[in-house]
Amino acid sequence: MKCEIISVGTELLMGQTENTNAGALARELFPLGIGVYYQTAVGDNEERLRGVFSQALQRSALIILTGGLGPTEDDLTRETVARVLGLPLVKNKEWEKRLKDFFHRFKRPMAVQNLRQTMVPQGGKILPNDRGTAPGIYLDLQAGRGPVVVLLPGPPSEMLPLFREQVLPLLRAKLQEKGDLAILQSKVLRIIGLGESDLSERIAVLLKNQDNPTLAPLAKAGEVHLRITARGSTAEVVQTLLADKARELREILGDYIYGEDEEELELAVARLLWAKGLTLALAESCSGGLLSHRLTNVPGSSDYLLAGLVTYSNAAKMQLLGVEQATLERAGAVSAAVAEQMAAGVRRLCRADIGVGITGIAGPGGGTPEKPVGLTYLALEAENFKFSRRYEYWGGRQVVKERASQTALYLLWLYLRGKLRPKN
Amino acid sequence: MKCEIISVGTELLMGQTENTNAGALARELFPLGIGVYYQTAVGDNEERLRGVFSQALQRSALIILTGGLGPTEDDLTRETVARVLGLPLVKNKEWEKRLKDFFHRFKRPMAVQNLRQTMVPQGGKILPNDRGTAPGIYLDLQAGRGPVVVLLPGPPSEMLPLFREQVLPLLRAKLQEKGDLAILQSKVLRIIGLGESDLSERIAVLLKNQDNPTLAPLAKAGEVHLRITARGSTAEVVQTLLADKARELREILGDYIYGEDEEELELAVARLLWAKGLTLALAESCSGGLLSHRLTNVPGSSDYLLAGLVTYSNAAKMQLLGVEQATLERAGAVSAAVAEQMAAGVRRLCRADIGVGITGIAGPGGGTPEKPVGLTYLALEAENFKFSRRYEYWGGRQVVKERASQTALYLLWLYLRGKLRPKN
Repeated sequence: MKCEIISVGTELLMGQTENTNAGALARELFPLGIGVYYQTAVGDNEERLRGVFSQALQRSALIILTGGLGPTEDDLTRETVARVLGLPLVKNKEWEKRLKDFFHRFKRPMAVQNLRQTMVPQGGKILPNDRGTAPGIYLDLQAGRGPVVVLLPGPPSEMLPLFREQVLPLLRAKLQEKGDLAILQSKVLRIIGLGESDLSERIAVLLKNQDNPTLAPLAKAGEVHLRITARGSTAEVVQTLLADKARELREILGDYIYGEDEEELELAVARLLWAKGLTLALAESCSGGLLSHRLTNVPGSSDYLLAGLVTYSNAAKMQLLGVEQATLERAGAVSAAVAEQMAAGVRRLCRADIGVGITGIAGPGGGTPEKPVGLTYLALEAENFKFSRRYEYWGGRQVVKERASQTALYLLWLYLRGKLRPKN
Repeated sequence: MKCEIISVGTELLMGQTENTNAGALARELFPLGIGVYYQTAVGDNEERLRGVFSQALQRSALIILTGGLGPTEDDLTRETVARVLGLPLVKNKEWEKRLKDFFHRFKRPMAVQNLRQTMVPQGGKILPNDRGTAPGIYLDLQAGRGPVVVLLPGPPSEMLPLFREQVLPLLRAKLQEKGDLAILQSKVLRIIGLGESDLSERIAVLLKNQDNPTLAPLAKAGEVHLRITARGSTAEVVQTLLADKARELREILGDYIYGEDEEELELAVARLLWAKGLTLALAESCSGGLLSHRLTNVPGSSDYLLAGLVTYSNAAKMQLLGVEQATLERAGAVSAAVAEQMAAGVRRLCRADIGVGITGIAGPGGGTPEKPVGLTYLALEAENFKFSRRYEYWGGRQVVKERASQTALYLLWLYLRGKLRPKN
């Protein structure tokens, strides 16, 4: 099934908004064996959208349009698609009611313009959107013998759930009906503590002789993802291929794999904390709450995260965490000794099993030749266990925050598996 | 000058690599008044690339292709473009020498395939690439009367410097020669407290009669951006047009505009805190440190942010912030009373001028019919000032965290401008 993705929006063409939808959709379509052959971005301009959409109708069996379903006048995807297809727009009463309820619930007046969002090209199926006012629309043309046209709202937070929950099942059923359901699946091994080149060297033989499954390493911030992709006639065959290859890779890379697929490092840490029934308290300075933010992204994090303190000022470090004034004066706020006292202090304060301390210079100001921007100390304290280390990160303020939080999670992951060697 | 960008690479189509080149190029072209009308991504496939490029030749005056200039067999942009244009490929001796020197310098053998990278369609200008082995190519067709075709390597770290250093000056000269060098600039007004529809209604007359400058509202998470774009013959003319339109909009929307261009809400809050010399302390529950993370993204945030406490557990709320057990039992952890005690507690603890408290249910678990996922209470306390309010956010865990932190920043922004009405 040849697919084509059309992203509508002048803000995409001008580069004001990154076009992440096309790539995200391609990744979702992949396991169904649906290949994307063209991605086009076009502005909120009826003539050009008409041209792009008409051409797509001639060459593609599945056309997904995102964006241009909003309530304002420059949103014209719905109207243009209907016009090209020669279909009248029909009001969907059910969605009209949903919209009215929505505005009523949030005590906001409904603009007349929002009524445009209740219109559907005749024969189209409405895809209710729980996260916004624009529903998706699914059109299976010529009673299922023509192309499939899907309209989705532009914001990724609305588009992606709508696609996953409502469009994918429809496409799957369609492929099955046509006997075209190829099975293609991939699995990602998430690797930390090894660079991309090191990884590639360790599995050089496997990379060279890959066929089915295929292997593709991809460097990410502070980690590497290794994608395994298998194809086969049945789900069982594919699953076996993936599992066998993953096992082979685990034999070589075992200690560096922290998770699979969408499992982030914070989840790997959370699972270990759950399994061991341990609690955690954080004291952050330069990372500014990002470590706490990442750990609380895991649903259920209240089980293990007792508290996180962002102690930016020296006063806060002393008053809240009991960092000693003499140490601050002698070693400076960015030092191993202060990181250690922060970890110890927050652990004591919260009566946590594990305390983490982070102190560093996120920049852009505050660096000196001896203590440059990016210099960071991390410390971890637990019962009969003390660890601290100096790190130097390279990049802007955001990068320093990200790398510091990533390293802290890595240290926690090592510690919880008995792989972190204590200091002295 | 109508521009079209073609990104070549199967990895882009499959979503394995984000296509950031097209957006980045659009942003570079904008100030020259060169509008991008189409962006297309196509795989490493000669037939489809030929189709896309042939179509572009018919409708665009400037065609920029990125990717597919590598040494391997699937890289075929150079050859395909030459074939469509009917131009023979000619070896560039100078680049051949550069390549040989390059490999010699890094003591690596040069693959025969790399010689393909020395070939240029006849009449093309080579654009030396200091960061890789593939040079760019600039073709001004029909002795300057036809379209301009530019070929650039795919990696953004090579593509963007090449474009800025070598392509932009050529384009600028070309526009000047044709008397087409328009100056185009835009300014974004960042608006909070008004939805996209409300905003559009308030400035309906301006939106309807826009010409130069143009106006484009764009909904973002918890705010709306209104982009003003002006064109003119000189920078002064453009600046005046922008300033006049911004002034006109400020008269209508004044109280809702918190910043311009890249100024985020956290920066607007930071500036007010700096101006007033006030300090801040945060007590976060459901937002999990995200508010602290956002505020510490502002360089120099240590001036005003004394501390942020992520008090996830009831114990931490009681022990660190002095939230009363009786209140937790009576009203529950997610309640106005607890948010107020959190704000008061963290303010007292840190001796801050302003304390903020956030408590809510980020989900996916923990919701009840009376207290659904997304229910959040925010409180702000300052000298002789108390505020708290109930909010209900709609979306997943991430969205609830984002909206809660956004609302907290909004409340701070209102408070610091004397626009937040106290409770009772």
